[in-house]
Amino acid sequence: MSYKDFSIEEIIEVMQDAWNAFHIYRKLSLKQRAAFMKAIAVELENCGDELINTVMGETNLPEARMRGERARTIFQLNSYAEACEKGSWLDARIDTGIPDKTPPKPDIRKMLVPLGPVVVFGASNFPFAYSTAGGDTACALAAGCPVIVKAHPAHAETSEMVAKAILLAAEKTKMPKGIFTHVHGASFEVGKALVQHPLTKAVGFTGSYLGGRQLFDWGNQRKEPIPVFSEMGSINPVFLMPEKLNTAAGEIAQQYAGSITLGVGQFCTNPGLIIGIESEALKTFVHDLGKAIQKIDPAPMLHPGIVSAYKKNKGNALLQDDVHLVAESETDVKENEALPTIATATGQAFLNNPVLHQEVFGPYSIVIRCKDMNEMIAVAKNLEGQLTSTLMATEKDIKENDELVESIKNICGRFILNGVPTGVEVCLSQHHGGPFPATTDSRFSAVGADGIRRFARPIAFQNWSNDLLPDELKDDNPLGIWRTVNDELSKEKI
Amino acid sequence: MSYKDFSIEEIIEVMQDAWNAFHIYRKLSLKQRAAFMKAIAVELENCGDELINTVMGETNLPEARMRGERARTIFQLNSYAEACEKGSWLDARIDTGIPDKTPPKPDIRKMLVPLGPVVVFGASNFPFAYSTAGGDTACALAAGCPVIVKAHPAHAETSEMVAKAILLAAEKTKMPKGIFTHVHGASFEVGKALVQHPLTKAVGFTGSYLGGRQLFDWGNQRKEPIPVFSEMGSINPVFLMPEKLNTAAGEIAQQYAGSITLGVGQFCTNPGLIIGIESEALKTFVHDLGKAIQKIDPAPMLHPGIVSAYKKNKGNALLQDDVHLVAESETDVKENEALPTIATATGQAFLNNPVLHQEVFGPYSIVIRCKDMNEMIAVAKNLEGQLTSTLMATEKDIKENDELVESIKNICGRFILNGVPTGVEVCLSQHHGGPFPATTDSRFSAVGADGIRRFARPIAFQNWSNDLLPDELKDDNPLGIWRTVNDELSKEKI
Repeated sequence: MSYKDFSIEEIIEVMQDAWNAFHIYRKLSLKQRAAFMKAIAVELENCGDELINTVMGETNLPEARMRGERARTIFQLNSYAEACEKGSWLDARIDTGIPDKTPPKPDIRKMLVPLGPVVVFGASNFPFAYSTAGGDTACALAAGCPVIVKAHPAHAETSEMVAKAILLAAEKTKMPKGIFTHVHGASFEVGKALVQHPLTKAVGFTGSYLGGRQLFDWGNQRKEPIPVFSEMGSINPVFLMPEKLNTAAGEIAQQYAGSITLGVGQFCTNPGLIIGIESEALKTFVHDLGKAIQKIDPAPMLHPGIVSAYKKNKGNALLQDDVHLVAESETDVKENEALPTIATATGQAFLNNPVLHQEVFGPYSIVIRCKDMNEMIAVAKNLEGQLTSTLMATEKDIKENDELVESIKNICGRFILNGVPTGVEVCLSQHHGGPFPATTDSRFSAVGADGIRRFARPIAFQNWSNDLLPDELKDDNPLGIWRTVNDELSKEKI
Repeated sequence: MSYKDFSIEEIIEVMQDAWNAFHIYRKLSLKQRAAFMKAIAVELENCGDELINTVMGETNLPEARMRGERARTIFQLNSYAEACEKGSWLDARIDTGIPDKTPPKPDIRKMLVPLGPVVVFGASNFPFAYSTAGGDTACALAAGCPVIVKAHPAHAETSEMVAKAILLAAEKTKMPKGIFTHVHGASFEVGKALVQHPLTKAVGFTGSYLGGRQLFDWGNQRKEPIPVFSEMGSINPVFLMPEKLNTAAGEIAQQYAGSITLGVGQFCTNPGLIIGIESEALKTFVHDLGKAIQKIDPAPMLHPGIVSAYKKNKGNALLQDDVHLVAESETDVKENEALPTIATATGQAFLNNPVLHQEVFGPYSIVIRCKDMNEMIAVAKNLEGQLTSTLMATEKDIKENDELVESIKNICGRFILNGVPTGVEVCLSQHHGGPFPATTDSRFSAVGADGIRRFARPIAFQNWSNDLLPDELKDDNPLGIWRTVNDELSKEKI
């Protein structure tokens, strides 16, 4: 099914509706926002098999994955709704006044309030969890912001079905008109108009570096700049430390063959770079990883554009000086499928060639062979910002290589020990973000309830009497939320 | 005294030193960072009268103000040091693993880590509190970041003395070389080179809109964009509500004559815009405010550039259609002094003319006379982002004018009831920030210990064993900090 792009006139109308809705929605209680979010979760479930069939048809993703992703999306909506109601994210702070101080100390009380309408760009690789009713939408709604979703054209029909579920939930929970709008737009111009519209107050995006950077630039070049949270590419380096590799080269190779090809390598946490030090153990690892990759079947990618980009980027990487192919899947590949592939190069090649730092989105990884620990440290220091980094290491490996460990810590948002980067747990302690170019703002997470804060700002009330204050800041704490009162965290009344 | 601008070569060296220092400093304990900050406070006190005399000579600010501002700066350093040690700002979050879940839930623990070297631009109007050892410097040091201060050329000698105090404190507390550097630069090029240097990871600025926006643009146009926290102009609207004005027009006029001229109007929270509804009470207010202003003596401004900008901007405002002079100080004015001035215009004039929305930095305010409440609401909705907004209102005024109150709330960072916006209490509940163009990032505060978070980002540790984790995240909570453990705030061991 194909959908007509929204016109500029329609976008102007959409934004005005969202702005009007904002003034109603932000005054609703945390409980009411949460009820809306939970109702969306219910409607998503109610979409039943039809939604699963539609998304499978549009994305080539298998049924189990899509059922799992819908469950995850529902979990996100429900758990962020709970976090919304719980109110800790509001960072409520109260300093009671001291009128007889010289000069008198005023009563000041602070909490977060929503920014305004948020434009969300659906991700191609997470048609549920980071698209129409996904993490950005859930966080924005929890924060008190209306949402305008720009559907990803590669799964526009799925997006349309999810949007209908959201609108049904909005109707059932009596949300204002304009609280959620679904915008189609295959062209560049639709996204640009949405980001540049003066009533847009923040943007969430998951996708390529080029797309994310462009939106970020548009957002910052506005007369009134706005925050643009682009979660972009990452090659998620994995460091194989000497002692660990000596004891478990074969096991790690098996584990990583799985992680590299999980979801046809179409995860932003896909391990695209594996770094070791020349040794017999590293040879074993490369050999075993190659063997394991040969046995993994090619699989269809999300859409033809992604397959051709994979072929092009992989081909380009393999053409670079000193880059060698280790192994490819032995199974014949179809037109829309990606061939799992492992390459290798020296540390020196990696240090000299920025092309090898670029993401090859798909089931591809390159093993970098450093001549010694100093070169491994140099590689770590030369890396751009990453969503994740992983250490495969013993305790001794870590304690003896502080400079390496600290250098890696400095470039990533999540630091994994003895595991794989794929699989992003949805919980408060999660950080799915990282220094540029992994994201455009390393201070905020796209996963977990802390992501709500992306779409809110503090306001301080000075000298307001108790009954004029929002419930969150009233003396008797009617919502029972955690607040910092005179520098101490408390749930007590004042 | 005049100082030579730093050369590009010197800046490159400074940034490399700061980067080297970063890798040492960020590993120091919260206690050690706090000790350094407290030592700076001691050295600032040790500068004695010489520092006060120097700053008075450079800025024309009176002795009592400068003694008060030094005390405030010392309080900031000490209180942010205490907040640093206390560790709540780290937002520590722990989700313990559930290995037997399907799939297994990993152990994830998150906390804030420093961004890297921070460039701070000294403010002309706060030579202590928002300059060399001021709020931005204190927050950056607490966050774990080395600081490079670009001295404000209008008080370069004061800045030099404070820098020496900081370096002495650094020496006494054994801080790494490069933890703090003081850079002179009257030219544009020095600031540009500092913001554009790849090892600069954040910028703090307090000053004009043009300066702040330029730094923001440079920061975002970099290959690796960085956060630029510019705290810029604000006209801090004050809304005089009908019932309140009826009962207290004369009293409010006296109160505001003081606030408008406090510190020769050189505060970013100076009330430059007062909005009322045509009435006898408003006439009384305007009359009394004018009378009060006539009695206030002109006083010297910070430097000749600021005086001439004041004259020019005020002159331009008074030339606008429908703008009328109400009163000026009756005392003769000297070359370097600013003449306290009140003007007035109609609501319609304000709505039609963006010039009237612009800040006139100095002891100037314009009273806008709206024809009715609808026009007052229109004015509120037409205002740009502000650091503060103030309501002079009875409870009835507020309860009967929800649309107005909500519109004001939506544009400001601090919302004051029945008070004046000048005077910014340093406490955790303070929010000194506001929607653009008040600041470039409404989500962060330049005053209060929450400002520390501007210079930090989260990192999540997945699957790390207890003794490899930072103390902040260890099971037995050796630092005794508040942490969110499995969604519940706690100071307990796990």
